[in-house]
Amino acid sequence: MIIDKLIEKIIELKNPTCVGLDTSFDYLPEDMKKSCKGLYDAASAIKDFNYKIIDKIYDIVPSVKVQIAYYEMYGVAGMQAFYDTLCYAKEKGLIVISDVKRNDIGSTAGCYSSAYLGETVISGKSFSVFPSDFATVNGYLGTDGITPFITDCKKYDKGIFVLVKTSNPSSEELQDRKIENGDTMYYNMAAFTVNWGRDLIGGYGYSQVGAVVGATFKQQAENLRNSFKNLFFLIPGYGTQGGTASDVSVCFDNNGRGGIVNSSRGILCAYKSDKYKGLKFDDAARRAAEDMRQDLFNELKKAGKEIK
Amino acid sequence: MIIDKLIEKIIELKNPTCVGLDTSFDYLPEDMKKSCKGLYDAASAIKDFNYKIIDKIYDIVPSVKVQIAYYEMYGVAGMQAFYDTLCYAKEKGLIVISDVKRNDIGSTAGCYSSAYLGETVISGKSFSVFPSDFATVNGYLGTDGITPFITDCKKYDKGIFVLVKTSNPSSEELQDRKIENGDTMYYNMAAFTVNWGRDLIGGYGYSQVGAVVGATFKQQAENLRNSFKNLFFLIPGYGTQGGTASDVSVCFDNNGRGGIVNSSRGILCAYKSDKYKGLKFDDAARRAAEDMRQDLFNELKKAGKEIK
Repeated sequence: MIIDKLIEKIIELKNPTCVGLDTSFDYLPEDMKKSCKGLYDAASAIKDFNYKIIDKIYDIVPSVKVQIAYYEMYGVAGMQAFYDTLCYAKEKGLIVISDVKRNDIGSTAGCYSSAYLGETVISGKSFSVFPSDFATVNGYLGTDGITPFITDCKKYDKGIFVLVKTSNPSSEELQDRKIENGDTMYYNMAAFTVNWGRDLIGGYGYSQVGAVVGATFKQQAENLRNSFKNLFFLIPGYGTQGGTASDVSVCFDNNGRGGIVNSSRGILCAYKSDKYKGLKFDDAARRAAEDMRQDLFNELKKAGKEIK
Repeated sequence: MIIDKLIEKIIELKNPTCVGLDTSFDYLPEDMKKSCKGLYDAASAIKDFNYKIIDKIYDIVPSVKVQIAYYEMYGVAGMQAFYDTLCYAKEKGLIVISDVKRNDIGSTAGCYSSAYLGETVISGKSFSVFPSDFATVNGYLGTDGITPFITDCKKYDKGIFVLVKTSNPSSEELQDRKIENGDTMYYNMAAFTVNWGRDLIGGYGYSQVGAVVGATFKQQAENLRNSFKNLFFLIPGYGTQGGTASDVSVCFDNNGRGGIVNSSRGILCAYKSDKYKGLKFDDAARRAAEDMRQDLFNELKKAGKEIK
């Protein structure tokens, strides 16, 4: 099962992280940007940047999370760069998470699921359109908007992460509101998520239907970890957004399992920081990825949660 | 303001509807499908189908809603068909709603907003990537995930529709739950939406920041209409999903304004129904669009809400 493959890679590399390819054009070095005049140029430069990042991190990081908004903004050319990035990451053996946060009513959700997890069938021939191991989804529409994704998770051995408690400051406005059963909205969303994933639990006890839980809200993350033992977390918000290794350590079980921590800007823009000054962007990214791994390793060890 | 243009078009055509270009490949006549062997063929056939539909409805319908999932599932080629469809609908003078239900944290939401409402800037040059008048968004992440869209609504005279009460059966699971202030989640989402759109109210008293409110839940729609006078509704669920003209009439004010009713399959697949048997798909679509207009006209008249 793909969730077991992800956990095994995390154990093998002693690294519960993913590199977020939220590749804003602004992140690129000047020499890669300067000749870009239009959407195709920009998308192509972003793709080249991603390939170089992937080349330098694929042997130390188990996974990449590719944030589609940064590609959609370059239109059709951007979607080509998104596709190429997914394929290249797969070729290098990385587990690929498409961060798309898709959501719709059942029949339409089925189309999204075909795009990222399943297949599109034309005249009896099947196509993997945007091939991904996992996709993120938004559960505001309830069960029938999630079911098509679950069906494909079973059929194609894929996973999803449902937005439960997001890392942004305003996430409290709706997600932290208590509802009639006395629990918060995010807690209820987590309970739904566990139910959606109950038939997809792998050998390590975690379901392929996981949850997005921001590193920026330690208390809520701890609450979720303690309540839902089968729920694997995709954890954004580490680094630039303010989440620390100590914050995220509560997301892990005593074997150092149960989550994967994303860092985007902290890796992609490492070359712009004083700490990695003078290094090429891809070398700086590798160093930053190594330092992130060490940071999490130290903190998990301190918490008695060494990865094993 | 774009919301006023939409309302004026509705008044002029006496037609508060939009045609949903949720163009599933299955909807196409056999002769358009039979030679399609791959993603490019299929996407291109869908585009051709859309153009023919648009040609037959642009003079009687104010708006189209293009559901991106049906294009994403054909990958890069599908996104080209999506783009072409938006452009062609614009050329024909239709108001274009991109049904994308995008959502993310602020910086990423900004990328989505650039893609659909704003512009993508490369080396000082601006590009309208997927040019739309309105886009649908999901507000589960709260204010800071919506703000970038609002900023572009102001800057580029665009609008959004926030998912409030969706048309699918499971929408009650989370959206109808009462929260601590005694109101339901969907009602709270509507209140947030009104607040997000308070600086974008046009001459008819409606904001460019509207709400998606399903035709399938009459009581909830009526509750929202009575509570939020500035909130313009995008109303899915009419027809195939079970919503009737009587159900949707509660969404309108006494001048027959305040909403736009979407129909997708009922128009696109009209040629497959007994009622329009023998007609070509595009002629059947026009007839179905005329019948939908008449259906709503009759029901609004009966309710004392004639469009004026």
